[in-house]
Amino acid sequence: MQDFHIGKLVVVGVGLIGGSVAAALKRERLVDHVIGVGRSRANMQQALSAGVIDEMAQDPATAARDADLVLVAVPVRQTAGVLQQLPQCVADGVIVTDAGSTKRDFVQIAQEIFGSAAKNVVPGHPIAGAERSGVAAATADLFTGKRVVLTPLPDTDAKAVERVASMWRACGANVMQMSPEHHDAVFSAVSHLPHVLSYALVEMIASRDNSEELFSFAAGGFRDFTRIAGSSPEMWRDICAANADQVLRDIDAFQQALSLMAGHIRAGEMDKVEAVFAAAAKARNAWAKGFK
Amino acid sequence: MQDFHIGKLVVVGVGLIGGSVAAALKRERLVDHVIGVGRSRANMQQALSAGVIDEMAQDPATAARDADLVLVAVPVRQTAGVLQQLPQCVADGVIVTDAGSTKRDFVQIAQEIFGSAAKNVVPGHPIAGAERSGVAAATADLFTGKRVVLTPLPDTDAKAVERVASMWRACGANVMQMSPEHHDAVFSAVSHLPHVLSYALVEMIASRDNSEELFSFAAGGFRDFTRIAGSSPEMWRDICAANADQVLRDIDAFQQALSLMAGHIRAGEMDKVEAVFAAAAKARNAWAKGFK
Repeated sequence: MQDFHIGKLVVVGVGLIGGSVAAALKRERLVDHVIGVGRSRANMQQALSAGVIDEMAQDPATAARDADLVLVAVPVRQTAGVLQQLPQCVADGVIVTDAGSTKRDFVQIAQEIFGSAAKNVVPGHPIAGAERSGVAAATADLFTGKRVVLTPLPDTDAKAVERVASMWRACGANVMQMSPEHHDAVFSAVSHLPHVLSYALVEMIASRDNSEELFSFAAGGFRDFTRIAGSSPEMWRDICAANADQVLRDIDAFQQALSLMAGHIRAGEMDKVEAVFAAAAKARNAWAKGFK
Repeated sequence: MQDFHIGKLVVVGVGLIGGSVAAALKRERLVDHVIGVGRSRANMQQALSAGVIDEMAQDPATAARDADLVLVAVPVRQTAGVLQQLPQCVADGVIVTDAGSTKRDFVQIAQEIFGSAAKNVVPGHPIAGAERSGVAAATADLFTGKRVVLTPLPDTDAKAVERVASMWRACGANVMQMSPEHHDAVFSAVSHLPHVLSYALVEMIASRDNSEELFSFAAGGFRDFTRIAGSSPEMWRDICAANADQVLRDIDAFQQALSLMAGHIRAGEMDKVEAVFAAAAKARNAWAKGFK
């Protein structure tokens, strides 16, 4: 780790994630030159002024030539378009990684585009910063103490994996590995499903005739429960599309749990309702105690 | 309102709600004498030391004799037991109000116990402070800018209603009225259902074989979504019991909304999924903007 250093880093998509990685590596003096690639000239100019990037470019293929590492941190929907411009670099051994919230879809796209050269592609998912966006929100300590999950395949180049892991550790993150399948199952349960539930509840209330009155009586509990329903609809549409089978399995499991609870309430078996509530409260509060 | 003054206020259950009402009225010098009634001597002593109450008592009936107003702010489950000790006072014209989260059950209990004298009983529900508890958390400005819903019946004494409304306004609250039925329907949608959903999600995850791993990857969105699942299991069991028919109706409506969403995801109709997400995000963010 102490020998880790990047000569030329290319960040495609200089938003919250890409900008924060660049800022962290620059603060630690672990990168010589950062090229930011993006369409919005205003955003790139801002990144340049903030010293987050050293150079701006529009064409990923040209920028990534001879790069040590390419971080693709664009909205998931644009990832395939970016990768399609990188086959030559990847074939030449440039390491590419991403920051998307689902991993099976990224792996599949990388394999389709790069074939066996996909061994230089390391799928990644930093667990941080979903609430804000844009380079203006980028900060060198966004990943301090946060987790980054890498989901390499058995044939992914081990040195590439170690290189990407070192980059994230240099940003202060704790890096772990799991399979893309396992990643998507874990995050379906703890992230994707809660988002679907929160969106569904708000939409249910918003579509009622007295929605204005209902919202007027919503309080702090509602505010917390629905905070994630304020997230980007496009981003979460794409996550649900990419992880559809897992999300559907978890919606189904949740429906069953909810039906069971409704059955207890209907039967007046309030001791069973309390047992569910108590188990949940205990688990939640124990978890929250350790959560930073 | 400027003429509002209470001679003798009895607060049965000097916790967060009861203690905060007493503290607010005392700060405004709108009450002469506050008697706190409670079982826990330590808690009552703390209330006395803090100047929240002037006198402590154990028997509600004795304390409430000649009182101007009795606020019953005990856990909902204990409310009936308290009311059963007050028929003489209520018959004598002492005004009684409560602070419970459901109102049809309170109305029914008051009618059963007091008969026609229930006209002196004003059902109330302050929308504040569910997260904390105990007199130590009580504060004179807990209700500033918050809403209090009163649910009088057609035959509830108008002067009693105005008296209780004035008390809450003196605490800084905005007071509104609706029927007990409408109250329970509104709060089922915006409060009771979200609690049930949050508890159900946490319990679903906690009961999985890899729950420890799942929790370890839960992040800020999960924290917010599940905050209400850390609430008192007893309190929410009682709310679900008291409002069972409405809660069941809303669970059913939610399951239908969720099934519809699952159908869209299964069919790959991601434009429809996005439309639901977008409508929810718009409604939620508009609401949150105005929420204090």
